[in-house]
Amino acid sequence: MTIENKLNTQKITSEESYACWLQYRKITDPTLVEKLTSSLSNLIVLDQSERLTAAIDELTTAIQSMLEVKPVTLTELGEENGVVLATEESLKLNNIELEYDVSELTVEGYVIKSAHNNIYLIGKTDKGVLYAAFHLLRLVQGNEPLTNLNIIEQPKNRLRMINQWDNMDGSIERGYAGKSIFFEENKITSNLARIKDYARLLSSVGINSVSINNVNVFEVPTRLITEEFLPEVKNVADIFRSYGITTFLSINYASPIQIGHLHTADPLAPEVQEFWKDVANEIYKYVPDFGGFIVKADSEHRPGPFTYDRDHAEGANVLAKALKPHGGIVIWRCFVYNCLQDWRDRTTDRARAAYDNFKPLDGKFLDNVILQVKNGPMDFQVREAVSPLLGAMPNTNQVLEFQVTQEYTGQQKDLCYLVPLWKEVFDFDTHARGEGTTIKKITEGSVFDYSHSGVAAVSNIGNDENWTGNTLAQANFYGYGRLIWNPDLSAEEIALEWIEATFGNDPKVVETVSKMLLQSWEIYENYTTPLGIGWMVNPNHHYGVNVDGYEYSVWGTYHFADLNGLGVDRTVATGTGYTNQYFSPNSEMYESLETCPDDLLLFFHHVPYTHQLKTGKTVIQHFYNTHFEGVEQVEGLIESWIKLEGKIDKIRFANVLERLQLQLINAKEWRDQFNTYFFRKSGIADEKNRKIY
Amino acid sequence: MTIENKLNTQKITSEESYACWLQYRKITDPTLVEKLTSSLSNLIVLDQSERLTAAIDELTTAIQSMLEVKPVTLTELGEENGVVLATEESLKLNNIELEYDVSELTVEGYVIKSAHNNIYLIGKTDKGVLYAAFHLLRLVQGNEPLTNLNIIEQPKNRLRMINQWDNMDGSIERGYAGKSIFFEENKITSNLARIKDYARLLSSVGINSVSINNVNVFEVPTRLITEEFLPEVKNVADIFRSYGITTFLSINYASPIQIGHLHTADPLAPEVQEFWKDVANEIYKYVPDFGGFIVKADSEHRPGPFTYDRDHAEGANVLAKALKPHGGIVIWRCFVYNCLQDWRDRTTDRARAAYDNFKPLDGKFLDNVILQVKNGPMDFQVREAVSPLLGAMPNTNQVLEFQVTQEYTGQQKDLCYLVPLWKEVFDFDTHARGEGTTIKKITEGSVFDYSHSGVAAVSNIGNDENWTGNTLAQANFYGYGRLIWNPDLSAEEIALEWIEATFGNDPKVVETVSKMLLQSWEIYENYTTPLGIGWMVNPNHHYGVNVDGYEYSVWGTYHFADLNGLGVDRTVATGTGYTNQYFSPNSEMYESLETCPDDLLLFFHHVPYTHQLKTGKTVIQHFYNTHFEGVEQVEGLIESWIKLEGKIDKIRFANVLERLQLQLINAKEWRDQFNTYFFRKSGIADEKNRKIY
Repeated sequence: MTIENKLNTQKITSEESYACWLQYRKITDPTLVEKLTSSLSNLIVLDQSERLTAAIDELTTAIQSMLEVKPVTLTELGEENGVVLATEESLKLNNIELEYDVSELTVEGYVIKSAHNNIYLIGKTDKGVLYAAFHLLRLVQGNEPLTNLNIIEQPKNRLRMINQWDNMDGSIERGYAGKSIFFEENKITSNLARIKDYARLLSSVGINSVSINNVNVFEVPTRLITEEFLPEVKNVADIFRSYGITTFLSINYASPIQIGHLHTADPLAPEVQEFWKDVANEIYKYVPDFGGFIVKADSEHRPGPFTYDRDHAEGANVLAKALKPHGGIVIWRCFVYNCLQDWRDRTTDRARAAYDNFKPLDGKFLDNVILQVKNGPMDFQVREAVSPLLGAMPNTNQVLEFQVTQEYTGQQKDLCYLVPLWKEVFDFDTHARGEGTTIKKITEGSVFDYSHSGVAAVSNIGNDENWTGNTLAQANFYGYGRLIWNPDLSAEEIALEWIEATFGNDPKVVETVSKMLLQSWEIYENYTTPLGIGWMVNPNHHYGVNVDGYEYSVWGTYHFADLNGLGVDRTVATGTGYTNQYFSPNSEMYESLETCPDDLLLFFHHVPYTHQLKTGKTVIQHFYNTHFEGVEQVEGLIESWIKLEGKIDKIRFANVLERLQLQLINAKEWRDQFNTYFFRKSGIADEKNRKIY
Repeated sequence: MTIENKLNTQKITSEESYACWLQYRKITDPTLVEKLTSSLSNLIVLDQSERLTAAIDELTTAIQSMLEVKPVTLTELGEENGVVLATEESLKLNNIELEYDVSELTVEGYVIKSAHNNIYLIGKTDKGVLYAAFHLLRLVQGNEPLTNLNIIEQPKNRLRMINQWDNMDGSIERGYAGKSIFFEENKITSNLARIKDYARLLSSVGINSVSINNVNVFEVPTRLITEEFLPEVKNVADIFRSYGITTFLSINYASPIQIGHLHTADPLAPEVQEFWKDVANEIYKYVPDFGGFIVKADSEHRPGPFTYDRDHAEGANVLAKALKPHGGIVIWRCFVYNCLQDWRDRTTDRARAAYDNFKPLDGKFLDNVILQVKNGPMDFQVREAVSPLLGAMPNTNQVLEFQVTQEYTGQQKDLCYLVPLWKEVFDFDTHARGEGTTIKKITEGSVFDYSHSGVAAVSNIGNDENWTGNTLAQANFYGYGRLIWNPDLSAEEIALEWIEATFGNDPKVVETVSKMLLQSWEIYENYTTPLGIGWMVNPNHHYGVNVDGYEYSVWGTYHFADLNGLGVDRTVATGTGYTNQYFSPNSEMYESLETCPDDLLLFFHHVPYTHQLKTGKTVIQHFYNTHFEGVEQVEGLIESWIKLEGKIDKIRFANVLERLQLQLINAKEWRDQFNTYFFRKSGIADEKNRKIY
């Protein structure tokens, strides 16, 4: 693998940083090399397609790198044994009979099977074959034996998407790993090699959809859907397509005015409908499998149908109609709330907004519209309740939105492995159809008869050499892909896979990094915002502590701390009534101070500092304890990491160490400001008499 | 008068806005016109100089505008009577004998005398004649009779300076009235007509020195002292010179490295000394009366002598030596403190910094160095103690620094007439040489044997049509000039002068605006920071309330509020010992809670919310009262102003009304956030049960 952006970043570069989990490091055990060489020396490919070419390329590169043997590619089964790549159809055409049952498989499913001294990678389609190839390589990198393979695999979620928040000037909204790999100086990049490497990384973890521009669409990117940029969009889409990835674009709802020169963007105006049809027709000329549009409308000052007194359904459907003949979809974001709230107004509750706005519209959206709902009702805090809108619209397609980029969780300076957080969301039981109606069942489409569903997330990559700023943040990229492929995987399993592929199999490294990753979310929560209260960050950039930073703001994000206590009363009895948006028994559980889980206590209730948690500690003592403990834990992370010196290449070692040191500075500042703020406000001393300023 | 920047501002323009207090409005009373015409129809000028030309031009323009008669300019006394402009010397040469005593007059002094049916404007030099001309016009605009004039006048302060904080990209640091009138796109402007009008305004109030670029000198402006820009600096200096104004430049202390290509800027290095000499020689080729350098060194990350282990005196003296042969001076700013303070550290006190840094160096500076000391030890807060450094260095020239631009006092949105604040500073008795050693005596140079002294201030003007954003902020520009000319003028006298010159003599207008101006400082203080505590503003831009905005910052600006009380303990007994920097009995007065004035209580002491003020009110009740009252007072300002509709031209009327409305929004936000913050923290209810959130 070459380093594509050596010249761009002016940083110390390393192949290891750039390669992420596709290291394909040389295998040194001679017995193992011999065994693998006998299995992997021939690649027998029975079909022809771009995706199969991509699979062969990946296998060839990987095998050559790991075994120092260049495999031979053959196009028919003969005397030579090896890895057979085939779709189910071509297997039949070639009269190869294997015992397996693919009747249940989706179009993206695949089988990996040992038979006739071959390893068969069989897909329902060529995409499945490609996924199978990456799966095989994962087994090799994970030191798994390649004998008696009999794997049947398919993704649980249909839409598995990454949203780039890349701006055409090259900046990335909420990006913490350099500049955009897609855009520079208001053009699409000419560095397509890096985009190809990105496609490999995405495909290797099963991501099948990418929107390449920021959902906040201003000025130049408004024109991405026009002939000015479509030839270059096509180049990008061509690369993604060969890795099984569909390309989407974020659009500006005011496009009919801004590029169509109409005097309105009213979705019910015939000329607007005509405009969008024309746009769609044009796009599909260049990108025949174009995925569709991502839309942030009537949200945070972005234009939308409200201007014309139309609702979200009317707003989305005009786009859906235009895309329908081509098979495209509209992904309509539900991040809609009053972002000019008066902090004095305690009745308006931002947490209520998505549900209040969208629930009444259930069933009014066309079937190629999907509503994209953030995992929590606020905005990707380190801990918040699961959005009650998920599962509340049986007649409207939904996609769950996560945030891989660590906007509120340390910005890839601080370590925060997010897979455990996402798993909690997936496992949350909405009770929408009685007990067991978990979020993962909803996104998998097995609860409601959704024509589209799945998961999307904001990307955490940029043009930093190591893609994610902090090398360990690669685990979130990897983990996101793997988890949404199969939400039943454990956070630990995913961590282990990632560590072995990324750093190799040294047990000390595996054990240490695994522990660091798995503790990191709790550590981050410990020294930042406790008990579900959220925010308390510096305005705008959202990094670092500022307890009152959003307290008197327009954003609807308050903690209401006074000398007696804090928290947001979202109960029906005395608060904003938000708890009522949940199905029973969740609504009752959150409503009651007794049954509300402590980790969301301040999200749902305003309590005194002396309120006793289920641990027996008071709220204020919990504050002090977790903040002191959080800093100690970060010191522990540094100690652990330092012990790996020499076991990890110098560049990645130094990168993580530098980030951990920044994290420690951040953690101490959080500890001291937070504790001081609440000590000054409550007047209650720390039981253990630790230093508070 | 023409409107020079009509095309630049794209705002509604009006001659009245642009003309400020040099309106020269048409006089309509026929008797008065006749009288004035007979006195002012001839201008008899006995010398020739650029400044006399400027005086004649001003008189001609003004008389023509007010009387609709173009005065005739004559060069010798003959049969025609009129206004005689002459230096003392030319008066003697012309054998004109008048009874007056100019023996006590400084070089800038002048006499206005009625004699032989003439009005004589006699200066020690041509500068005095120019000042006399503006004085005469002030009398006419103020409706004063021109009979039996016998005025002897001279400025009390020698250096009367304005510091522009203009950047060469056209922006202005802490500017609230548009862009720079001096620079655009990293060049000096070609719009010299506007600079000439600025010179007229400055000269009309007696300002005699201007530094044209920001004290924070980065990149391009570093090169203002080189041949690249000196030809254009010369053009600007030529204009200023003809209005009696000397031009200064702010320099970058790292210039020897950045433009001299030396490897050091060490003031004791011979090559650095050589560098500065060469620079000075070059400058004086272009600007023979160049004033000198303003230097912000070793302050807020700007380079300085500390890098080379040299002190401020060594740092300043190298520049002074280079300027000395040409008569130039170095103005060295004392705004030096630790701007990376740890908020946890309660022993470091920013208020102490200037004194601690500079007092030990008394006597070590060359006699053409002046230390520029801000009026307070912190940074131009609405209320702070007077800097104890003023008067504490008998053997070192000092200049007092005010801030005309309203950085912390409403940013020319909110009304805040600053003359009363400045007067309090001037009248402060330092006791440096026993009772009566007021600040004004120190700046006038009558206490210590200073070779240079006076006052400087940061400008509040930009390229807005009305120069100051808020029309009423013109009063601060005017008032600053007038007050430092004569610190014994009252704030009310100055306000009246300004109002009559600016808006005319309608009694209702005069009375209303005068009341608005004179109340405005107290009103601003009422709804913002009380009892001398300061700050509580939004970080960086410093507008609007944010109680904890600077509480956990690196800037050394804290209020230390907890549930019991707030304030900074600067006593010797239990605090930072700052009170000891004052002479007795001030030190004892501030040290004692009993004698410390309430309006500076929280500047010097940390007290409980229940501490009783001399008014009988508790601190917390005072907080609530002033904040509610402040908003009501702003509503009162609006009411008062609205009643002037029709009596003031529409553009200026609308401008002020718009600003007042912004002020009301600001005041309400201050009231509500401030009161809520302290109610939440103290738990003490408002006695009057007014609305706190």
